[in-house]
Amino acid sequence: MDTAPPLSPTARSTVRRAPRRARTDRRDLYAVLDAGLIGHLAVVLGDAPVVLPTGYGRDGDTLYLHGSTRAATLRAAAAGAPVCFTVTHLDGVVYARSAFHHSVNYRCAVVHGTARLLADPDERRHGLAVLTEHLAPGSWSATRRPDRRELAATAVLALDLTEASVKVRTGPPGDDERDLPAAGDPDPVWAGVLPVRTVLGAPEPCPLLPPGTPVPGRVRDRAPVGVVSPRA
Amino acid sequence: MDTAPPLSPTARSTVRRAPRRARTDRRDLYAVLDAGLIGHLAVVLGDAPVVLPTGYGRDGDTLYLHGSTRAATLRAAAAGAPVCFTVTHLDGVVYARSAFHHSVNYRCAVVHGTARLLADPDERRHGLAVLTEHLAPGSWSATRRPDRRELAATAVLALDLTEASVKVRTGPPGDDERDLPAAGDPDPVWAGVLPVRTVLGAPEPCPLLPPGTPVPGRVRDRAPVGVVSPRA
Repeated sequence: MDTAPPLSPTARSTVRRAPRRARTDRRDLYAVLDAGLIGHLAVVLGDAPVVLPTGYGRDGDTLYLHGSTRAATLRAAAAGAPVCFTVTHLDGVVYARSAFHHSVNYRCAVVHGTARLLADPDERRHGLAVLTEHLAPGSWSATRRPDRRELAATAVLALDLTEASVKVRTGPPGDDERDLPAAGDPDPVWAGVLPVRTVLGAPEPCPLLPPGTPVPGRVRDRAPVGVVSPRA
Repeated sequence: MDTAPPLSPTARSTVRRAPRRARTDRRDLYAVLDAGLIGHLAVVLGDAPVVLPTGYGRDGDTLYLHGSTRAATLRAAAAGAPVCFTVTHLDGVVYARSAFHHSVNYRCAVVHGTARLLADPDERRHGLAVLTEHLAPGSWSATRRPDRRELAATAVLALDLTEASVKVRTGPPGDDERDLPAAGDPDPVWAGVLPVRTVLGAPEPCPLLPPGTPVPGRVRDRAPVGVVSPRA
């Protein structure tokens, strides 16, 4: 991975707002994508954008997306319409001493491109395996694989991670000098960060499961979500 | 609110995929929006969509958005380009007995429309108050209000909640009959839901705060994020 090309090779994947927050190391892109469970896929339908949450999975520099062959957004993407796919982790609410400098800490990856609709059965199956393992590690081996009818109902798309940007905000508020407390101020305005984290709860067994069925390790010991941070 | 018009008056805000998951009560829209901290704003730039995370706030049937007057997406929205704004809560990973029926539990609100760039100073200030209070309740009163220069650097947009849809998935997996365990199956495939929740951590004071500054109630006792559910 040390030889991977850096990010931001194009105008639209170059971070212009607050460029100090941009990350150009491809490993930061991988880290943000790998730590998420859902992203937001945008396409243009007619002359208007539509953005919907969607699952995904990554293998190397390929991002896999899937959905019903009847979903309008998937159909448009499959037909070669440009897409934008964004994964965001909210890491904290930043309380500042002015309304203006209130902010959030976050990690965000934005991928631009045109997706390929996969036709080759092996490639489709591989994409679905990647997607399933991303959402639910261990499930591809542990559960029934898609049959012919299910495969026919599912569009699997591949989006190259060629044109992408990563933006990260960390740390305390960036207050103006004029708003900082004077020495000895008896009642300074509180400022700081309220962390936001995504956590997994206790597994809730399906009511149709025989009572006492043990929770498998793939569910019970699942790694936390959202915590794989790009290097600070 | 009982007299509010239902949702889905247009073709594009009518849920077509899995319509059983659609909610058409306007209070469900409010609940999903009010429980979130950030949304994803999509606009069309050139012929391609761009989707970026952004803060927001709601007052009645108006959604407020803001950002730098120099951000390309905000500028396009302010110029009257159609926008789509989506807020998603991920509530759980749904483990099924087949790869195909793996899913997620979620609440998602999608708003379509054209935003208005606010020019009236009072309306702009009101929008910023709503945005600040949504992100950090209590902060509008407790911190310095925007000055003339800060106001000039900030675009404040209003988006009417006229054309919107809400989709919610809850509950266990929807497995096929054929995949359910037979009576007495000694080793059934585990299925169920792994809940996903957004939680707030312990406040992290700004290093420039005098040691011992108490954490105010507006931060310390902040209500949980993401938990205001639409009625099941």
